[in-house]
Amino acid sequence: MGKVLTSRKENYAQWYQDLVLKAGLAENSAVRGCMVIKPYGYAIWEKMQAVLDGMFKETGHSNACFPLLIPKSFFSKEASHVEGFAKECAVVTHYRLKNAPDGSGIIVDETAKLEEELIIRPTSETIIWNTYKGWIQSYRDLPILINQWANVMRWEMRTRLFLRTAEFLWQEGHTAHATAEEAMEETARMLNVYATFAEKYLAIPVYTGAKTASERFAGAVETYCIEALMQDGKSLQAGTSHFLGQNFAKAFDVKFTGKDGRLDYVWATSWGVSTRLIGALVMAHSDDDGLILPPLMAPVQVIIVPIYKTDEQQKQVYDAADKICAELKAKKIIAQVDKRDTQTPGWKFAEHELKGVPVRIAIGPRDLENQTVEVARRDTKEKSIYQLTDLALKIEHLLDHIQDNIYKKALNFRDSKTASADTYDEFKRLLDDEGGFILAHWDGTAETEAKIKDETKATIRCIPDNARHEEGKCIISGKPSHRRVLFARAY
Amino acid sequence: MGKVLTSRKENYAQWYQDLVLKAGLAENSAVRGCMVIKPYGYAIWEKMQAVLDGMFKETGHSNACFPLLIPKSFFSKEASHVEGFAKECAVVTHYRLKNAPDGSGIIVDETAKLEEELIIRPTSETIIWNTYKGWIQSYRDLPILINQWANVMRWEMRTRLFLRTAEFLWQEGHTAHATAEEAMEETARMLNVYATFAEKYLAIPVYTGAKTASERFAGAVETYCIEALMQDGKSLQAGTSHFLGQNFAKAFDVKFTGKDGRLDYVWATSWGVSTRLIGALVMAHSDDDGLILPPLMAPVQVIIVPIYKTDEQQKQVYDAADKICAELKAKKIIAQVDKRDTQTPGWKFAEHELKGVPVRIAIGPRDLENQTVEVARRDTKEKSIYQLTDLALKIEHLLDHIQDNIYKKALNFRDSKTASADTYDEFKRLLDDEGGFILAHWDGTAETEAKIKDETKATIRCIPDNARHEEGKCIISGKPSHRRVLFARAY
Repeated sequence: MGKVLTSRKENYAQWYQDLVLKAGLAENSAVRGCMVIKPYGYAIWEKMQAVLDGMFKETGHSNACFPLLIPKSFFSKEASHVEGFAKECAVVTHYRLKNAPDGSGIIVDETAKLEEELIIRPTSETIIWNTYKGWIQSYRDLPILINQWANVMRWEMRTRLFLRTAEFLWQEGHTAHATAEEAMEETARMLNVYATFAEKYLAIPVYTGAKTASERFAGAVETYCIEALMQDGKSLQAGTSHFLGQNFAKAFDVKFTGKDGRLDYVWATSWGVSTRLIGALVMAHSDDDGLILPPLMAPVQVIIVPIYKTDEQQKQVYDAADKICAELKAKKIIAQVDKRDTQTPGWKFAEHELKGVPVRIAIGPRDLENQTVEVARRDTKEKSIYQLTDLALKIEHLLDHIQDNIYKKALNFRDSKTASADTYDEFKRLLDDEGGFILAHWDGTAETEAKIKDETKATIRCIPDNARHEEGKCIISGKPSHRRVLFARAY
Repeated sequence: MGKVLTSRKENYAQWYQDLVLKAGLAENSAVRGCMVIKPYGYAIWEKMQAVLDGMFKETGHSNACFPLLIPKSFFSKEASHVEGFAKECAVVTHYRLKNAPDGSGIIVDETAKLEEELIIRPTSETIIWNTYKGWIQSYRDLPILINQWANVMRWEMRTRLFLRTAEFLWQEGHTAHATAEEAMEETARMLNVYATFAEKYLAIPVYTGAKTASERFAGAVETYCIEALMQDGKSLQAGTSHFLGQNFAKAFDVKFTGKDGRLDYVWATSWGVSTRLIGALVMAHSDDDGLILPPLMAPVQVIIVPIYKTDEQQKQVYDAADKICAELKAKKIIAQVDKRDTQTPGWKFAEHELKGVPVRIAIGPRDLENQTVEVARRDTKEKSIYQLTDLALKIEHLLDHIQDNIYKKALNFRDSKTASADTYDEFKRLLDDEGGFILAHWDGTAETEAKIKDETKATIRCIPDNARHEEGKCIISGKPSHRRVLFARAY
């Protein structure tokens, strides 16, 4: 198994696409813009789901399921929402096929036309708030804390596996509250869940903050996000949490009687992350030889490759490998022995590197004699000889260490690619020469934001949560500014 | 909280609908035929998913995700498949909305018409086999053992919550094999997984067997099923496993090179269960006071209701309740203390009965003195006084016993409602007076099957797996028959 990937330096976009395909994560399907998530890619998604679902439940949320289809009229009820999604909606107009009268095949039965067209959900605020209307009468019915794991559809014209696809998988939280404060707290809580998840599990450091008005979710009062840096110096929005105010409650007339007996509209949040996170995971850590997966997200954490020549050696090596595998499993480490007899050890090494298995253990007859194994780390490519004594414990520590190391490497890279610019020239130079994040003063107007985007393709990724007060001048207009905002070119 | 359900005797269908709504399992949505699965109902589905997913992985399967939308032309490739599904397909024809020129609202943008219509998957054989074509070249690529958890859409005209809805959630396994024998084994293996799951976890006894040709899945060579008896004497098909032969491989031209170097079409299976199982669970066990959930499927297994008058009592009772709850949780029992101060204990008792919590523990000041609690079983409504010593252990045993008891009760009912008929008159009498399953001789023709269905609404549920050879005469035609088949009226 030779080199199978375009190098990052040569063509980063091509490297990414090669890697997603060759590592068996996903592929394009026969339906434009819709992907097939293959078993190895889906196994990563299942790991993400398991951790996030636990975090959602820990913070008091329950899962539920709302319809895939949304009546067209629901969209129109919240003006900016429909504005944001109308241009990318898949529309169901009929509910039956029939044989063509001329025998030429199957056609749509025009007599089975829907009275009102249905939209495949691009997001579920409208159908959910129409449902919540029936669930909420008084403050006793609040809060409602619900999450949905679902597929959604946005008819994107230019798609890339995981990063931007017409259909994608995600979770969408939709909560209802009695006060603005509670809803704001929820928005912040879930943003924090996402940031913790990204850093602790995906090993990806993120900046958190508020979006500018032009980058807000369609229908939100405030949108908060986590932004992650990819190795090509571009930012990727990896999760969003929206404070929706009373916008959807007003659109769907959802009122509640407060403790004081007064009627008011309900306050809302929504928040989501998607299979895009798999793209982020791939792009943040991997190298020209393949995936580098943090152990907590790896479908296989340790692969054991037996090396032998004779049948007798095979038996002994297999026995030893099985014993090690069992010891690792006893420590809840996901380990496998690669016993395929159709491939050489070298081929297997390359394949497991491509697939990003964090630790590889090779064991052969010499090792048996010496009571050792060879342990190779995927992240640093270091190889070491380990004594068999307490091997499982040592591997457990190694996996922890690898998880840490991958995070620290990404953190160092991100920090080294975060700079400040005080002039537009410096801003442009940094953007072209260094990439990454640039902290700069901005006058707060949509005009300036648009001008920068037009001229440099950089956008304001967020107004950082922890931005300190600092008097300065907008790099474009020279008008006063009180804090720096975070710019980058982005996915 | 008084009686909230219509009784089963009065109107079984209404009882079911009342129960699904009042227990908070699901409700109808604004979209015709599509339901909202509420948190309590979804929690049951999550339990089903967790167990089944484990069983699928244990038998070597991985999960993956294929597109929601299927090109219309794919359907036409397998003749009987399109025949089976064409009449209930939701069709996507456009991919954009726009503002009406007259300002009247949002309309479909006719310029954004798809060249080929897309169908929302009613099942995924076609899109999956089109994908497998790219994955399979030689016997080394086989078997492929994949499952998908997904939503599907069948435009049913008459819908009932969980039992028959336009959109439903399910899992669909799709496997590819080198030989017919292997595919047949897989079909049987997964039917067996379903039967085990139904009996061990849902506590529902099932008959297993093959469907007749007229009841086969559209595109299958053989369809096997599990059939469960509901309390109204009707059968419910609770899961199916299909041997697809080479039908889809031929339709999508999927061939492989065998070990002998010869090219042959690939052999296939598919198998699925859906949210319909929630309907089965409700109808198999519940009573006029609400749900009866087997402990292994209960989102809450033990509810602890504190009883007190004074604030001081409250504190003491809460402390004791929390301690019991912690002890139960230490044994992996899902327990909660109901501390709502807006409801009386009596109201809470009725609500937890309605929701089918298997065990209720009531604890008050008198109990504290005596070092006891009152334990009520949901299945038998028995109440007993338990000493606090080893309470968690006793509750653990009680839950096991309840799981068993619910199964045995359903098994006794099913067996008491399984009869043999040797004449058509006896058959009709049994059907009208007793309901349930009837074993009878059938001449094997579709004509006889159709006649019985027309005249009695009973269908052949399956040709039982364990049917012994028995010479007899068809109850309609009098022609010879070699074994009895299983009839029932069905959902």
